[in-house]
Amino acid sequence: MAGLFLTFEGIDGSGKSTQARMLAERLDKDGFDVVATREPGGSPGAEEIRRLVLEGDPDRWSAETEILLFTAARRDHLERLIDPSLAAGRIVVCDRFADSTRMYQGLRGPGLRQIVDDLHELMIGREPDLTFIIDMDPATGHARAKGRQGSEERFEDFGTDLQARMRTGFLELAAAEPDRCVVVDGDRTPEAVAADVAGIALERLRG
Amino acid sequence: MAGLFLTFEGIDGSGKSTQARMLAERLDKDGFDVVATREPGGSPGAEEIRRLVLEGDPDRWSAETEILLFTAARRDHLERLIDPSLAAGRIVVCDRFADSTRMYQGLRGPGLRQIVDDLHELMIGREPDLTFIIDMDPATGHARAKGRQGSEERFEDFGTDLQARMRTGFLELAAAEPDRCVVVDGDRTPEAVAADVAGIALERLRG
Repeated sequence: MAGLFLTFEGIDGSGKSTQARMLAERLDKDGFDVVATREPGGSPGAEEIRRLVLEGDPDRWSAETEILLFTAARRDHLERLIDPSLAAGRIVVCDRFADSTRMYQGLRGPGLRQIVDDLHELMIGREPDLTFIIDMDPATGHARAKGRQGSEERFEDFGTDLQARMRTGFLELAAAEPDRCVVVDGDRTPEAVAADVAGIALERLRG
Repeated sequence: MAGLFLTFEGIDGSGKSTQARMLAERLDKDGFDVVATREPGGSPGAEEIRRLVLEGDPDRWSAETEILLFTAARRDHLERLIDPSLAAGRIVVCDRFADSTRMYQGLRGPGLRQIVDDLHELMIGREPDLTFIIDMDPATGHARAKGRQGSEERFEDFGTDLQARMRTGFLELAAAEPDRCVVVDGDRTPEAVAADVAGIALERLRG
C-alpha cells in the first residue's frame, strides 16, 4: 500500500504546527501508521542545515543562497525520511514543505519565485498528496507569532505587509492547485480547525 | 578596470593548491592587486557549508544534496568575495571552482553531471576568465594525495579509477573550452609548473 504525504502551510501564527501535531495524534489514535515531521529540518542532516540558515545574523545569507540551502535540506529530508516512509505505506504529516519556500523566499524579491520553482523541479520534483493551507488574517497571525518569539525569530518578523502578500500567495496557490490544496479557516479554536482538518484527511484516507 | 578571474583545477595530488598560491604570490610581487581564495569555502558562510559537507560520516549526504550544498557555498563565495573583488578591478586566484563540482560530484553516478550543469546555469552563471588544469598521471597524483591525508580526507580517497575518469573529464573540458582552459603538465617541479603558469597569466594580463 502506498503512503500518503500531508503538509501544513500558512502565514506565521496561523497555527500550522499545532494543527500538524493534532492531526498526527488523531491519525495515530485511529490506528494509522503516522510519521510527524517538519521543515526546514526533519532529518539529522536537514536539521543541521536548518541551524546554519536560521541562526546568526539575519543578513548572513542572500535569498538565493537561502533557497539553495533550504532545497538541500529538503532533498535530504525527502531521501532519508519522507520517501522511505511513504514507500513503507506510512502517512507523513509535515509542518511546512516546498510551498513555504515558494512564499517566504519566493516573495522577497523579483525573480526569486521562478528560482524556487526551477530548483524544486530540478532537485525535488515531488508535491504532497494533500496540503492544508491554514488561512488567517495577517494582523492576527502576526500578533500571535510575535507573542511566542524565540531564538529563531528571523522569519517571524517580516511585518504584516509581507504576511499579507504571503496570504494572497497561499490563496492563489490553492486556487491554482485545487486537487492538492485545501484552505481551512484558521481564525477559530484549534479544536474546531482540527475537526475540519481530520474530517478532510480521513475522507482522503478512506475514500 | 575590470578584474580577472583565474582558477586552478585538476585531480587530487596534481598540485593545484601549490600552484594557486605560487601564482598569487608572483602576481602580488609584480604589483597586481590579488585576492587568493579557494573552494569549497572562500567566504565565512561558504566555509561553514564546507565544514558541514566535509566533516562527519562520508555517507551523510547523497551526491545530489552535496551538489546543492556546494552550489550554495559557491553562490555565497561569489556574492561576498569574487564578484565584489572583480568589480573593484582585482585579480581573483581561486583554488578549485565549478569544474571541480562537475568532475568530483558530476562523475559519481548517472545523471549527476547534468544536475551540476543545470544548477550552475540557474544559480551561478559565471565562468572564470582563465582556468589552469594541472594535468597529472592519476597514480602519481593519488600517491601524493595519500601522503598528506588529513581530517578532510573524504574526497581524497576515491581511488585511481575515479581519478583516471576525472583526468579524462578535465581534458575533455579543456578541449571543449579552449579559450578558457589551459592544460599545464603538472608532473614536473613546482617551480617549472609555476613558471609556465605565470607566463600564461601575465600574457593574459598584459595582452
